[in-house]
Formats: sequence, structure tokens, C-alpha cells
Amino acid sequence: MEIQNTDSTWFTESATEIGTAFSLATSSLLHQEKSAYQNIEIYQTKTFGNLMVLDGFIMLSTRDNFLYHEMMSHPALFSHSHPKHVAIVGGGDCGTLQQVAQHSCVEKITQIEIDERVTRVSEQYFPELCTSNHDPRVNFEFCDAIEWMRDAHADSIDIIIVDSTDPIGPAEGLFRKQFYQYCRSALTDNGLVIQQSESPIAHWESITKPMHHEMQAAGFKQTKTLFFPQPVYPTGWWSATMAAKNDIHLVRDHDAKQLNFDTKYYNYDIHLSAFAMPSFLKT
Amino acid sequence: MEIQNTDSTWFTESATEIGTAFSLATSSLLHQEKSAYQNIEIYQTKTFGNLMVLDGFIMLSTRDNFLYHEMMSHPALFSHSHPKHVAIVGGGDCGTLQQVAQHSCVEKITQIEIDERVTRVSEQYFPELCTSNHDPRVNFEFCDAIEWMRDAHADSIDIIIVDSTDPIGPAEGLFRKQFYQYCRSALTDNGLVIQQSESPIAHWESITKPMHHEMQAAGFKQTKTLFFPQPVYPTGWWSATMAAKNDIHLVRDHDAKQLNFDTKYYNYDIHLSAFAMPSFLKT
Repeated sequence: MEIQNTDSTWFTESATEIGTAFSLATSSLLHQEKSAYQNIEIYQTKTFGNLMVLDGFIMLSTRDNFLYHEMMSHPALFSHSHPKHVAIVGGGDCGTLQQVAQHSCVEKITQIEIDERVTRVSEQYFPELCTSNHDPRVNFEFCDAIEWMRDAHADSIDIIIVDSTDPIGPAEGLFRKQFYQYCRSALTDNGLVIQQSESPIAHWESITKPMHHEMQAAGFKQTKTLFFPQPVYPTGWWSATMAAKNDIHLVRDHDAKQLNFDTKYYNYDIHLSAFAMPSFLKT
Repeated sequence: MEIQNTDSTWFTESATEIGTAFSLATSSLLHQEKSAYQNIEIYQTKTFGNLMVLDGFIMLSTRDNFLYHEMMSHPALFSHSHPKHVAIVGGGDCGTLQQVAQHSCVEKITQIEIDERVTRVSEQYFPELCTSNHDPRVNFEFCDAIEWMRDAHADSIDIIIVDSTDPIGPAEGLFRKQFYQYCRSALTDNGLVIQQSESPIAHWESITKPMHHEMQAAGFKQTKTLFFPQPVYPTGWWSATMAAKNDIHLVRDHDAKQLNFDTKYYNYDIHLSAFAMPSFLKT
């Protein structure tokens, strides 16, 4: 049963299957539309800036999206010796894209998002995340990412970032071996995938661990999960999982130590620390 | 304005000053009493085990208290070469005490909790946290911790763990220079304090940073904050701050690597990683 919130000044997301709910105090509903794929809402909150909600699930807030977007991009980018072509699957709010664009070695960014409306709405309500949308290196493909990846040229992408919704509904196929096989084929020799992999304390057995298995079954040699805080997501604790054709390690360590762009969360120490495995997840 | 939750099957804590609320699905209210100091409630939740609530604020749940209790104890204990006498300020649920008692080098544990009812209720509803309450090394003092610390013998305690409620109301004095001076005087030469220090993203400027200043003003040479997830606390991201008469570093690194007791979260890698400072907190 969902939480009954009769007070219209709060937005509440009930995560009924894990028995929790998270609420943000809101000032107004700024935008609501039904796109071809989902219900898109933007709330103005009292303390977290703007809030994007897709089909009732919180996607991001102005205040704390930096945690997720930085950890979905920089650990992977610095784990590759020369990332030239980066593909982002999903990522419609463009926050991940913006972080990737900060790496000057990247020559091409392809974003494959099924719902163009998410990007257009983000340009309006999260303009600070969309500052790289007109970067000449960036190419938007508004289409199905599984088909796009199936048809991608072999050995053409260095890093694939899967910045998708949860593995229920439209994004389900993005958590399966078949998709990972397409990714592996599209990747160059030292290529790697990084994908959001849900809450370590709520979804490890049901989602994260099976992801490792599917990635390995698709032929990836090494998989590793990294951890970070994310207040607006269920349990406030989130993860991303990397899969590599070879080994996963911090290759561009000098660049990570001497960052030539601004970050709010990520730095060299955070990179190394993010991979520390809590004891209860080692079994 | 607090969230209006009309559904009695959820317990909701509104953190109105930070504009968030967190809810847990509940099955029943197991216990409620008004002690001399506060309102004590125990709920049975659907997915987080039992839940202790003091004056409307969530203290701990069966499911995720290990994160907090392990990080309030082991990083400090392994940062001291020979912790013999450990004092716990607050800690009425006894979860921290239990973790401390796992260190066989500890000869004496004194717990100074103002409200004996919290401990008695915990013995009933969190018996798994109270397994060391009758350890012959343990001494309970149910009294005011500031007065107790003021009157403590100089050079008599190796580690002081301040496992208190938030710095509003009764616990306010525990976040002040005067208390830290009492602590410093009671500590042995290599002594250190560790204290819960709220949410890095919600309370850094208002609580954590001032704590560092107060600790340093009290004469502590070094202060450091460590970070960990804690789903049932506001923002799901929490911190503890250490203050040392000398330097803070992992002294018993061999013991931390070769743990001779079970942990669910803490291990050697987690210890080192917990101190990584997010970039936005470095300014």
C-alpha cells in the first residue's frame, strides 16, 4: 500500500517493495506532461531546487544530482587510457553528458535517449545541466538504445554509460546479457561499461548481483561496483557497476589527481574510496 | 509544516528544516512510554525490523543500525595503539557498546546515558544489540554526561565515543567547547574523541564545521570527519567526527586487516575510504 499523503505541499515517492518512502517539501508543480513514453513532472521544492519525476519516481533534484552524475562519469572516464568516443544510454537530463564533456580528450559523445521530451524539459528546468548540449562533439539519438547498440559498429566506442531508469518497465532490457553482448561488441579493446545499479542495502541480491552475472556471461572479464550517497533515491545510498573487457583500475591517475575541471563530489580520494566493499556485500 | 500522514501503517519523520521526510511502513506500535526525559516509541516495521523513535526522531532500526554502530566504534578503536578504557556518552541502545566490547584489548567500558529507560527498552526490543550489557568490563552510569566528564579523573580514558541525539535539546551541550575541554582533560596522552556529526549534505555548515572549531578551541590537535551511509537518518548520509590530542591515523592496521570478530560494514578498506573528503566539503 502506498503512503497516503494528503498534504499537497510534499511530493512523496513510496518504495513499497522495500517499505520506505521519501518526501520533499514542494512549493509548486512547475510542469506536467504525458510524453509518448511516460508521465513527466517537475516540482519546485523548498530546499532541493527543482525536482524531476518520471512515472512517480524521482529522477533528480537540482541540489544533489552532482553526486550521481559525477560518479556515473569520472570513475569510468579516468579508468580508460584514452576515451575518445563515449556513448550515454538514457541520460535524458543531460547531467552525465555535461560531466563527460569536461574531459577534453573526449572527441565524440553520443547520447541515446528514447524520450526526447525528457531532454527538452530538462533544458527548460535544469538549464545548468544542459550547458554542453550544443557542444560540437555531442550527437543526440532519440531512439531505442538496445536496437541502437545492436546496430553500432564493432570497436567504435570506448566507454558506454548506462544512465537509465530502474530495471522495471522500459529499461528492463538494459540489465540483460543480450544488451551487454551488444555493448561488448561495440566497445574498443580496453572499453568499459558503467551502469547505475540501485541501492546496495535494498537491491544487492535482486538487481546488482544479477547484473554482475549477466555482464560476465556476456564476456566481460572484470566487473566492479562503486558506492556513493544519493539522498533523493531510496535508502539514500546508491551504486554503479562497471564491466570491462580487461581489468578495471584507475589508469589516468595523474589526471584524476590534477583535475583540470571543477567537481563537487568527485576527486582522486573519492575515486579510490568508492570501490571499498562493505563486508556484508562480500559474501 | 510537518507532513500530514493520515495512514497509520507508516511512521514518518519530517526533517522540516531541511525540507525532507522519511517514512517506514509499520505493522504495529510495540511500545510507547514517556520517560523522565523523552517520549520513547518502538514500532515494528515491515522491512526494517524494530524501530526506536525518541521524541519523534528515528534513532535506529534493526536492519541498518550496524552501519552507524560499527563506524562509531571501530575507526576510533583501531586509531589508538592500546585502548584500555572506553567511555560512551549516550549510546543507550547499547549497539555501540556491543561493538566496542568486541575489542579484546579493551579492559573497561563506561557508558554514561542520561535515560536508563532507553537501555531497558532496548534490552527488550533490540536484545541482539545488548549481548554485552552484562560483560564484566562494562559499567553503566545513568546520569548527566557533561557533569560526569567534568568530574572524571584526568588521564583516565583512552577513547570517548559521543553517541548522542542531535544538538538540539538535551544533547546541545555535548557539541560545545566546554564539554570537549572536559573530555580532553579526562583523556590519556594519545586519547581521542569520536562523535556523531550529522548529515554532510544537510548540516556541514551549521553543525559539523562548528564542531571542528569547538574541538580545536578546546585544545585538540587534529580533527577529521568520516562518512558512511545511514538510510534511516535524514538524507541517508551521515558522518562522525574525530578529535585527537595528537595525530589521527590507523595505528592498529594489522588488527584492522585481520579482524578477529565479525562486522557487517566495517573492514580495512572501508576504514581508509571513510575519510575521503567530498570536494564540496573542502572549501
